[in-house]
Amino acid sequence: MVSANSLDPNLTEFDLSAYLEERRPQVEAALDAAVPMQYPETLYESMRYSLLAGGKRLRPILCLASCELVGGNPAVAMPTACALEMIHTMSLIHDDLPAMDNDDYRRGRLTNHKVYGDDVAILAGDALLTYAFEHVATATQGVPADRVLRVIAGLGKAVGGEGLVGGQIVDLASEGNPDTTLETLNYIHNHKTAALLEIAVTSGAILAGATDDQVQHLRDYAQRIGLAFQIVDDILDITSTAETLGKSIGKDVAAQKATYPSLWGLEESRRQADKLIDEAKAALDSFGPASQPLRAIADYIVARTY
Amino acid sequence: MVSANSLDPNLTEFDLSAYLEERRPQVEAALDAAVPMQYPETLYESMRYSLLAGGKRLRPILCLASCELVGGNPAVAMPTACALEMIHTMSLIHDDLPAMDNDDYRRGRLTNHKVYGDDVAILAGDALLTYAFEHVATATQGVPADRVLRVIAGLGKAVGGEGLVGGQIVDLASEGNPDTTLETLNYIHNHKTAALLEIAVTSGAILAGATDDQVQHLRDYAQRIGLAFQIVDDILDITSTAETLGKSIGKDVAAQKATYPSLWGLEESRRQADKLIDEAKAALDSFGPASQPLRAIADYIVARTY
Repeated sequence: MVSANSLDPNLTEFDLSAYLEERRPQVEAALDAAVPMQYPETLYESMRYSLLAGGKRLRPILCLASCELVGGNPAVAMPTACALEMIHTMSLIHDDLPAMDNDDYRRGRLTNHKVYGDDVAILAGDALLTYAFEHVATATQGVPADRVLRVIAGLGKAVGGEGLVGGQIVDLASEGNPDTTLETLNYIHNHKTAALLEIAVTSGAILAGATDDQVQHLRDYAQRIGLAFQIVDDILDITSTAETLGKSIGKDVAAQKATYPSLWGLEESRRQADKLIDEAKAALDSFGPASQPLRAIADYIVARTY
Repeated sequence: MVSANSLDPNLTEFDLSAYLEERRPQVEAALDAAVPMQYPETLYESMRYSLLAGGKRLRPILCLASCELVGGNPAVAMPTACALEMIHTMSLIHDDLPAMDNDDYRRGRLTNHKVYGDDVAILAGDALLTYAFEHVATATQGVPADRVLRVIAGLGKAVGGEGLVGGQIVDLASEGNPDTTLETLNYIHNHKTAALLEIAVTSGAILAGATDDQVQHLRDYAQRIGLAFQIVDDILDITSTAETLGKSIGKDVAAQKATYPSLWGLEESRRQADKLIDEAKAALDSFGPASQPLRAIADYIVARTY
């Protein structure tokens, strides 16, 4: 269990484990309902195989938490929360393909293309990506249409050439290049990881009618936990075991990928991650005690072992 | 040149060639501006290589025409017109991949993955698909937000498991199966081809504030030209030359794919296409002479040789 920031006397103890355990099944149920089995079954089986494969559901939970933080009913953010997980799942399915990272295992199970074939895996990713936008547009209830459009625009930016896909392209180009700079490494992870976390955190608040200032504070928070998340991922790739992580490890080293530990060493990497988490929590100061879930999630990101 | 329906005394001669020649460069310029070169260049080069590779631009032109048909300014539909072409291009890039149809040539040029590699081609498709939704959400001007959301929902449905991707999955599963039924063949093409044409035609009208009745007539029109389009494609795969078509021909036969000519023979296939086009034009009767462009495009679909 991870406790909330104990340096702040305004914060009572917050049980993050209980919070995540309550939210995760809500998200799972919403995902299950959002993508029911239908014809053509092969496609929907493949989509559901990866979408319902477990995982931390961190992006949906961040979205729901930020919606509540600014006084919204989390139900209005649930379609967007699901869309975030659909997009994240699509990126994993496509990343795992032989033409990309060529991974056989993910979350302890065979990757999508190992079960359904490369062709179906490509199409399942396309369908999940498409459905993310459709689902936000059709299932979001009780929110002015212009806010929904703003969320759709933000999701698009987080995924496309100025987001996740752009980061992935630079990552592929940097493989085997020992001269990768810190600037390039930051670009990769700000786009591959932080961009989607940023819209996860801001979208819930936008749907709930947050002010521009509130959205900016949440953006500052999200960018920092996003980068810290990746630094910790790099550390875990070196220090963890395959059993704990549920996926192939040591792959970064094998692929001659630049990582934060390869640039900074392990100790400095941990120090930088801690610093980013402190800054992330500081960005939430104006929200007061209501920001406990987001603070605890920030702590959890550096404390996690998988 | 194809003339408008000469049986209708209310219609004066309509110069479709001139109409298409005027519209096509407008669409090309809008596409060029919508996806400018930027970092990371490899990604944007790859996206632009396929997006700006010519083609008939039929879907964008149908979208602009239906917007005008119900009294709208075509400028309000241009972002959606571009999105339709981004989606169409994404589907071609992913379809051509070795894991799918494994095509080396498209529109007389090397396919995207032959130039940029499978990994970049997958990501360029993902980025185009994503940007289609983002572009509609951010660039559509002077239209109530709820109409824009309706178009985004319609685009999603036309592309995902209930549209293009669903049709592609059933198509892949039917390859080499000599028992493919007419019902399955219709499913494939209603989803792979007609669904995107349908949202192309209806979206322009929705943005312009069409009534439900008007949208329904346009849907009837689009479904029929969509199926006729595919029947003609199947006919051309047999009767055309590679030079005229700019892509590999006879591939359907080689892949043992069921086609309309293989089920009906060439003569009956032509008759069915003609019948669908007559029905498509009849669905436009209530629009009067303003429907000339859409009628002429219907005629063009059966008359085309490439």
